[in-house]
Amino acid sequence: MTVGRGPKVRAAVLAATMLELADRGYADLTVDGVAQRAGVNKTTVYRRWRDRQSLVADAITDQIAAEVPIPDTGGIDGDLRAFARSLIRTLAGPTGQAIAGTMLAGAARIPEIAGIKQRFFEDRIRRAEPFIDRAVRRGELPAGIDPAELIKTLIAPIYLRLLVTAEPLDDFLADRATAITLAAARAGAIPGKRS
Amino acid sequence: MTVGRGPKVRAAVLAATMLELADRGYADLTVDGVAQRAGVNKTTVYRRWRDRQSLVADAITDQIAAEVPIPDTGGIDGDLRAFARSLIRTLAGPTGQAIAGTMLAGAARIPEIAGIKQRFFEDRIRRAEPFIDRAVRRGELPAGIDPAELIKTLIAPIYLRLLVTAEPLDDFLADRATAITLAAARAGAIPGKRS
Repeated sequence: MTVGRGPKVRAAVLAATMLELADRGYADLTVDGVAQRAGVNKTTVYRRWRDRQSLVADAITDQIAAEVPIPDTGGIDGDLRAFARSLIRTLAGPTGQAIAGTMLAGAARIPEIAGIKQRFFEDRIRRAEPFIDRAVRRGELPAGIDPAELIKTLIAPIYLRLLVTAEPLDDFLADRATAITLAAARAGAIPGKRS
Repeated sequence: MTVGRGPKVRAAVLAATMLELADRGYADLTVDGVAQRAGVNKTTVYRRWRDRQSLVADAITDQIAAEVPIPDTGGIDGDLRAFARSLIRTLAGPTGQAIAGTMLAGAARIPEIAGIKQRFFEDRIRRAEPFIDRAVRRGELPAGIDPAELIKTLIAPIYLRLLVTAEPLDDFLADRATAITLAAARAGAIPGKRS
């Protein structure tokens, strides 16, 4: 392999993994299928990824990094709306549907899915921490509030629509989720960090 | 068939349907399997239920009626807590797991599931209306608040745990969901009924 091919191979394999996930779902995804789709040898895949799980986890984490910018609108209201809108766009789009469908359909039956779901979720919370810290410093949120619990309050109504009520995933939903979350935070209904 | 056997047959068939759902899931449930389990003829089932979908919908609706009492603690805080706790008990128990797993695993792939999910959900909101109306009359909630939106705010954090974060379904969660919902309602973050 020549110098400089590494990152291209990595990108091609991860893109192929997302397409296989969308077409087949996690249960039927194979390293063979991914390698064929990416136009590389199976051994090339196994040189970089230990197993199917770490490959899928890397592909999903990369996708999230590409799709979820860290908002900085100058206020917590705008930041939460932007964050909620970007989650909604991910979940409503074809890649997001593939990710969500794969994670949720498999969750009950395939134990290794749990790790991927956890990673997806933790990554999202990590991306929210900077703007929540800024809001605390500006006095817009109570000091010591747990960013993970704040973000869970924000995303709960979005996942309810996606998975339970099948109502539209639109910008009004982002605004509603933001209003609920800020009201709850200001009323002290969202717990602080355990320290 | 002798007089008085009707309700017993109905109860036996619905109970068998729930057991088949728990064991096989919706996708693999057959009227034949239900009839065998209930110890009746397939024709006896088809005399009462048009198809598999209406049978499953009836079984789930019956189960909800049995498991979800309408709370009346004298205050909206207590009523919402009781309602959330009873939902959590249903979802955490074996029957609830069967229902949730069946509805969600199948939702993406089997179109007829959508109707059952809708019915499960509407039934739950119907059961909440009386205590929400009482709270409005007592001045604990804004007049004109939409009971469906209030209940969705309450159950969103519960479904997030069940389906996304896999955190414990416990009474603390019921208290948290209640506090978030009341803060949002009082801040005007939950919309009113469209009239």
